[in-house]
Formats: sequence, structure tokens, C-alpha cells
Amino acid sequence: MADKIVFKNIIGTFVFDNQINVVESHKGDFEKEFKDKYKNAAPPSDKQLYRILEFFTDPEFFEIFFSENLTMTKRAIKDSVDTSNLINQTINTIEETEKVINILTKRLREWYALTAPEFEKSVQDNAKFAELIIKKSRDILLKEGNIKEEDSMGKKLDDNDLKQVQSIAWQLSQLYDLKKKHETYLNDLMQKGFPNTTAVLGPLIAAKIIEHVGNVERLVKMPASTIQLLGAEKALFRHMKNKKKNPSPKFGILFQHPLVQSAKYKVKGKIARLLADKFAIAVKIDYFKGRFIGDKLKEQIIDRVRSLK
Amino acid sequence: MADKIVFKNIIGTFVFDNQINVVESHKGDFEKEFKDKYKNAAPPSDKQLYRILEFFTDPEFFEIFFSENLTMTKRAIKDSVDTSNLINQTINTIEETEKVINILTKRLREWYALTAPEFEKSVQDNAKFAELIIKKSRDILLKEGNIKEEDSMGKKLDDNDLKQVQSIAWQLSQLYDLKKKHETYLNDLMQKGFPNTTAVLGPLIAAKIIEHVGNVERLVKMPASTIQLLGAEKALFRHMKNKKKNPSPKFGILFQHPLVQSAKYKVKGKIARLLADKFAIAVKIDYFKGRFIGDKLKEQIIDRVRSLK
Repeated sequence: MADKIVFKNIIGTFVFDNQINVVESHKGDFEKEFKDKYKNAAPPSDKQLYRILEFFTDPEFFEIFFSENLTMTKRAIKDSVDTSNLINQTINTIEETEKVINILTKRLREWYALTAPEFEKSVQDNAKFAELIIKKSRDILLKEGNIKEEDSMGKKLDDNDLKQVQSIAWQLSQLYDLKKKHETYLNDLMQKGFPNTTAVLGPLIAAKIIEHVGNVERLVKMPASTIQLLGAEKALFRHMKNKKKNPSPKFGILFQHPLVQSAKYKVKGKIARLLADKFAIAVKIDYFKGRFIGDKLKEQIIDRVRSLK
Repeated sequence: MADKIVFKNIIGTFVFDNQINVVESHKGDFEKEFKDKYKNAAPPSDKQLYRILEFFTDPEFFEIFFSENLTMTKRAIKDSVDTSNLINQTINTIEETEKVINILTKRLREWYALTAPEFEKSVQDNAKFAELIIKKSRDILLKEGNIKEEDSMGKKLDDNDLKQVQSIAWQLSQLYDLKKKHETYLNDLMQKGFPNTTAVLGPLIAAKIIEHVGNVERLVKMPASTIQLLGAEKALFRHMKNKKKNPSPKFGILFQHPLVQSAKYKVKGKIARLLADKFAIAVKIDYFKGRFIGDKLKEQIIDRVRSLK
């Protein structure tokens, strides 16, 4: 059977004779019985390959090639959706919800300051501010702040006017719920997909780093020194352009980590490096579905940070 | 009684004798009986006034001056809150809610495109898009679009994952409600405070112009040619700097008016000027609480626009 040639492309599997006539063809891969039948068939020589490829330039194949390619591409797009896409969407939803909360909180505060400026100033926490406005009337809020109507710089508004302000506060409470819901979901996704990474940095910052790189495979190949500076690209390029004027950055996204936040200025860079080191190990384990050692990595971080103080 | 001098300041009303000793004093204004008693009292001469002012430099008055000033300022702030403040807050709330809706809609579309890209592309209207996601499952949406599961480029997601996307859609439907509520409220405020202006331009654009100027009194004093260009300040200054390169702007906020929007390019400027003319009349009538002639102004606008076509 050495005079038969087997050739495979996206349309299917083909058997040719020496004159490059199709002897047998099959959609997709050969099934087992055919595989056995043609196990001695030779692969095409260079010259035969050239003629086979010429055979497929026949326009009758064009439509099949096109539809097969389309199906393959569609399937590839479908299959490319994985946990890291969901993580990216969730982290963006959380960040955008925060942005939206800030926009509406500013409006709520500015508006409510027309009617109770003393109360507006006395409550710093934005979530609590919105909650109080929903739960308590303006008169009660003034009373609880020991402010008499005649002393207040705020104007008493009609109930209908106040309802409008309250509707913003109510919307804000819904947005806080949305944010919380997505934070819980993000935590679930991260615990499932990246248990070690999450143990080391917490779900939010770990997810931000993954989102920043956009591709876990790329992240796995990155040295810790690069991970340390993710999110500080602008400062890094400024530094590379003019080293004297711009000191090299010490952290990017990692700056948001509580351990870096709470550290003294001098050791912030060291702690960021430490976190990046352990993160680089953790993300490799998570990517290759290794054992859980996140708790040990976290312990090592805590010990090292303690020794720096 | 011509040897008595009456003097009034923010602490109260004082009667002095010729030696500038206080004979009698009263908090605030004199009541009627005192007014009659001292109706023949002379106002202080320049020399006496000097000595009276010196009298009040006594530190014992400082605290009273301070607290009276404070009360006056507080009251002035309280009284400065009027309908135009509420209009400003409402128009800003509407604009910011639109901004917020855009942010979250982008996220919703990007996320939902992972699971049903064909459906995402087929619905242009953002409000309808959010509504459909709340009401119908992904499988039904695909089915209604005649897309088979195997043909879709979207990945089937777990119910839990889909719930997260739906929570954004639900939030959006709440935000649309908030916007609608504030549009209704704005209309009420405008109809009450600016009936003529509202009749001429509609509540939203009339309110935007009032908000842009920030002060109705200033707006009343503006010529129509200035009103026409409100919101186009940047373009105007560009034009003033380089007249050849930058043609003078023809409209600012008024560009958003349906009559300008629907007009041919050549007459857009003329219509904006027409609207500004009638608005300038309407806002003066509203400010001075004149009669309602908004319907007539509107009619004149419609007639003129028709003749331009």
C-alpha cells in the first residue's frame, strides 16, 4: 500500500494514489478502521505535496474551506472564555462601581449640604452618610447633631424636594450592594482558580495584577522584579528617560496592599519586592494546578515583614 | 429732643446724648413706641459719628459683633437657597446619572458579549438591552435570535456567573428609573419657576442654560447673542485668537435642541439665534413674574422655522 498517500487538512482526511486522484476521503479525522487500513500509507514527498496543494486550489473547495475556518474560529473564540475573563470583568465592575459611587456621592453631599450642611460635614464615611439619609429625616439628623433650626445654615426643604435627594442615597445603597456582591463573587472565582495567589495577596489585589497583565500565561513567565512594578509603567519609563530626575519606582499595584500601606516609607519597596517574589511562586503553582502552599507563603511573608520592623 | 442722637448698627438701635453716652438701647430695630418717642432725634454729625464709632471699638462689643455677624451670614446662606439651586442639583444629577449609565452599560455589554455576542450586537438600544437581560435567559435570547448553541461564539456560563451579569443589568434599570424621576421633578420645578422659559426651550435645555450661568439675575441681563453661545466658550475664544483658522461658533447648549438638531446645516445657526432671542424674552418675564406668553413665543418660533425650510 506504499503507493497510497494520506493527507490531512481542515476539511478532512484524504487518501491519494500516485496520480494524485482521491481514492477515499473522510470528514475530520480518520476513524480507527481507516487508520488501520492505511497505516502503511506514506506521507507525501515534496513534489507530491506540491501537487496535492494544487489539487485543493480548485474553487469547489473554497466554500468548504471558508465554512470550516469560520466554525473553527467561532469555536476558538467560544473556548477562549475562561475564568480569567470572568475575573477581568468582575474586577472592572468593582472598579467602575467605585467610580460611579464617587460620582453620585459627590452629588448627594452637595445637594444635602443645601438643607443640612452641618450634618453633611459631620459624617465622613460615604456609605454611612447615604444610609443615614435614607433612614432618618433631616429634622431628626439636625436634632441628633444638636443643631437648632435657626442656627443651621441649611434651608428647610419641602418633602417632595427631600425625596429627590433621598432617591440618590437609595441608589447609592444599591450600588454598595452591587459592589459587595461582586467582591464576594471575585473571592469565589479567585479561591477556585488561583488559591495560592489569593492566599498570598488577597483576592482583590491578586485579581488586579492578573487583569493588568490580561493573560495568565504571560504572567507565569514574568520575573518577580517585573511583577513588582506592574502598574508603575509610566514612572518606570520616566525613570529610564532621566535617571537623575526620576528615581526608579518601587511598586505599582502592590502599593495598594495593606502590608505596603502600613509599612514605614523606607521598607515599602522591600515589602513590595517580597510580595512579588511570593506571588511569582504562587501564580506558577496555580497555573500548573499544583498543591496548595499559599498558607506557608503567607506565613513566610508575615515573618519577613516582622523582621523588617 | 434734638440733643439726642439715634444710631443703628447690626447689634441694635442706640440713643446717645450730646456727650455720646448711651441713653437707651434696643436689640434690633426700634419698636413703634420708641420710634414715636425719638422721631425728632437728629442723625449724628460727622464729628459725632466719629466718636460713636470709637465708642463701639470697646472690646466688650466684640463678641456681640461676632455672633451677630455670624447669625446674619448664616441666615443669608440659608436664604440664598432657592429654586434655581434645586434646578442646578437636579440637572447635574440627570447628567451624572447618564454618565454612570454609560459606564455600567459598557461593562454589561462587554461581559454579556462573552456569553451571547450575537445577541449583544443585535440590540442597539441600551435601556432595552438591560431590560431583555433581566427578563429573559441567555438560552431564550439566543433562540429568539435564531442562533444555535453550536453556532454561537459565546460560551455557556454557569447560572451563578450569569447572575453576576444580570445584577449589573438590574442596577441599570434602577438608574434609568432614577433618571426618569429626576426628569419629572425637573419639569415640575421649571414649570413652576420658569413657565415661559420652559415653554420656549423645554425643561431640560432651559435648565441647562440656567445651570450654566449659575445665576438667573445675570442671565436676565445677557443679550440674546451671548445666550446663543453659552456652552461654546472654548470655541469662541479659539475663534477670537485665530479668526481665519477657527470660524465663529454658532451655538453652544442650544445645539442640543431638537429644532437645531433636525435642521439643515445651513440654517442651524439661524435657528439657534431665534431660540436665544425668544429665550431672552421668556427668562426676563419669568424673573419678574410676568404673565404667561410662552405658548405665543413657541408659536412664533415654529412659524419662523417653517419659513426657513
